Amino acid sequence: MADLLKGNACIGQSGGPTSVINQSLVGVIEAIQHAPVIDRLLGARHGVRGIVEEKFIDLKSVPFQSLERVADTPAAALGSTRDKPDKAYCEKIFDIFSRNNIRYFFYIGGNDSADTARIINELAMQAKYELRVFHIPKTIDNDLRVTDHCPGYGSAAKFVACAVMGDDRDNASLPGVKIDVIMGRHAGWLTAASTLGRQDESDGPHLVYFPERRISPDKMLADIDAVNRRLGRCVVAVSEGIEDEDGAAWAQKIALGEERDAHGNIQLSGTGALADYLCALVRDKLKIKRVRGDTFGYLQRSFAGFASPVDRMEARMVGNSAVHFVMDGNRDGSVALRRTGEGDQYACECFLASLADVARQTKDLPEEFIDKNGHDVTEAFRSYALPLTGGLPKMGKLF
Amino acid sequence: MADLLKGNACIGQSGGPTSVINQSLVGVIEAIQHAPVIDRLLGARHGVRGIVEEKFIDLKSVPFQSLERVADTPAAALGSTRDKPDKAYCEKIFDIFSRNNIRYFFYIGGNDSADTARIINELAMQAKYELRVFHIPKTIDNDLRVTDHCPGYGSAAKFVACAVMGDDRDNASLPGVKIDVIMGRHAGWLTAASTLGRQDESDGPHLVYFPERRISPDKMLADIDAVNRRLGRCVVAVSEGIEDEDGAAWAQKIALGEERDAHGNIQLSGTGALADYLCALVRDKLKIKRVRGDTFGYLQRSFAGFASPVDRMEARMVGNSAVHFVMDGNRDGSVALRRTGEGDQYACECFLASLADVARQTKDLPEEFIDKNGHDVTEAFRSYALPLTGGLPKMGKLF
Repeated sequence: MADLLKGNACIGQSGGPTSVINQSLVGVIEAIQHAPVIDRLLGARHGVRGIVEEKFIDLKSVPFQSLERVADTPAAALGSTRDKPDKAYCEKIFDIFSRNNIRYFFYIGGNDSADTARIINELAMQAKYELRVFHIPKTIDNDLRVTDHCPGYGSAAKFVACAVMGDDRDNASLPGVKIDVIMGRHAGWLTAASTLGRQDESDGPHLVYFPERRISPDKMLADIDAVNRRLGRCVVAVSEGIEDEDGAAWAQKIALGEERDAHGNIQLSGTGALADYLCALVRDKLKIKRVRGDTFGYLQRSFAGFASPVDRMEARMVGNSAVHFVMDGNRDGSVALRRTGEGDQYACECFLASLADVARQTKDLPEEFIDKNGHDVTEAFRSYALPLTGGLPKMGKLF
Repeated sequence: MADLLKGNACIGQSGGPTSVINQSLVGVIEAIQHAPVIDRLLGARHGVRGIVEEKFIDLKSVPFQSLERVADTPAAALGSTRDKPDKAYCEKIFDIFSRNNIRYFFYIGGNDSADTARIINELAMQAKYELRVFHIPKTIDNDLRVTDHCPGYGSAAKFVACAVMGDDRDNASLPGVKIDVIMGRHAGWLTAASTLGRQDESDGPHLVYFPERRISPDKMLADIDAVNRRLGRCVVAVSEGIEDEDGAAWAQKIALGEERDAHGNIQLSGTGALADYLCALVRDKLKIKRVRGDTFGYLQRSFAGFASPVDRMEARMVGNSAVHFVMDGNRDGSVALRRTGEGDQYACECFLASLADVARQTKDLPEEFIDKNGHDVTEAFRSYALPLTGGLPKMGKLF
């Protein structure tokens, strides 16, 4: 075993929570019980903000039963934050870290959080402060680079797939056009998951629109009209981040939310405006009477009691593995998943990626996952994503 | 055994589907296998519309495995309708019934459907056409009279409770004001179910607004402000049908959907406008930065793979019982549930109510289920509703 730094550890959760982000937290807490070089494990309340405000929870003293219940609870049990530390912010962090002899920092989050971890790591090196920094991945958006997929995605994908499966049966019961707006600011991973429950050729969603393929209102209307003429109904899955042919977001064009967070992101979720706009468009232009829209919203990341069993297990595993990578003497990195089996033999293992490779930039749906018509996924996508849901219910039909 | 009419039977599904309406359908199909007086069981596609268009499915020939899969599938497997038959429509129905020797009619639906059954029954008596008419209850709104509760409600209540439990944890992670708009045109039963997952005094939803208690924008804002000052966050559950102090629906005031169905109902679901309006109000008047809204929409009645086990069983039971009531020689009626045990001993049995007592009018939340402050439920409501969900997950916390 490498000669390890002795001291305390700090852990935080950041960005939009998921259904299984607490599995990763508990994965770290569990594994650290067996890491003798780490004395105390301080949980920072609301991410980096909890560090600079010195709001810590002693996580080694939490009883096992409580931890297991926390692991199965959606959203960030430590609290989350949208803060993105600048240099002054990071200097405060080091001050707190050195006063508390914190030598290990685990940060659970997406690409913005990986970037925060990267910045803190670099500033620590510049300051010659001995610190070990590990990013633990989570995001329902599934848009982190390097890793096969992101913990949190499987559960959100299961939610979206089951929502659209049921919604498709509802639409078959009372036919019309149904538009479902699904989370995904820049990448269509979650919207693509709406297809995972399809069993027959006539099952919805019949049209799927991603940010990766620009779509004009006229083209979308023509697509919907064609499906509606063929089947007498149409279920449409739309990413909240879809773009018009000129590359501008539809949401922006219809004057959605001016609010931006510290990372410069526009608010796309938590409003039904895009769905309502699309419904009005279909109603007005195609003269179809029954047109309904739903915006799946925050339920996609927080719905209780419905996490994917595979996702739960993997989220626990990446937390556990972060501590194992520490004990193996690694200095920094982002825990990533590598697929080691497919289909019924699906399995993953953890490896360590560099923080810089995961930070900032994101990963779109690749070409091989998007159907050549631009409004559907390929079988390759379904084979990739289905195992992450842990399996889906089967729908029965009478005609 | 009474001297029973020999002939064929017809069954239809009507109104807004639920997650377990197919359990009731399969309950009838199952029981009819053992009813020798009934020869064929014709499933009408899209309710009464399927009868007048003579679109039938022979339900006795569907294999058992297919039936079990259909039972566990949300939404109406026969198709549903919003048609409300007038006299001419009913005369067509009798014509079809007599030509097909249909002597038994089972109609699965809410109070509008009970009224349709009542009208058909009366016209049959006037025409001296021997017909047995049974209404089988379903509605996520839980607003049918006579019955203790309605099949379909327990699963929708479970969905809403789990959605708000997770959403409350999400809101605790990233504090602000969160507004959840829940189905319920005239009655607050489903919105009330948002409270069923609360474990601690500080858990959301912190405010619950029903159509049964008029609420002005100023009063709601004052309520939200008070909770936000006390807890630093606020989760609000709002019925889509809430009314202003003058008795006008908020949704109507903000110029929501002009579309009405054949029963004269305004479209409240399938649009995010009420949630967006409430969010803008809170943001503008209370100057709170993080304000989000979700409209739970059609997922409440159609989400796949998440039905309440108690609701599934009871929906099957009311279908089965309808056939047993036929075999016992009853002429007509609406199957209803009577509670025979409470708490851990929760149980229900079926009895037959009169069609007229269930038709048309609905049942609001009674006084004893609404807290005297007007924006919460009582413990009596929670004791009533919790068993119907089949149990809820427990949330874990670190602070």
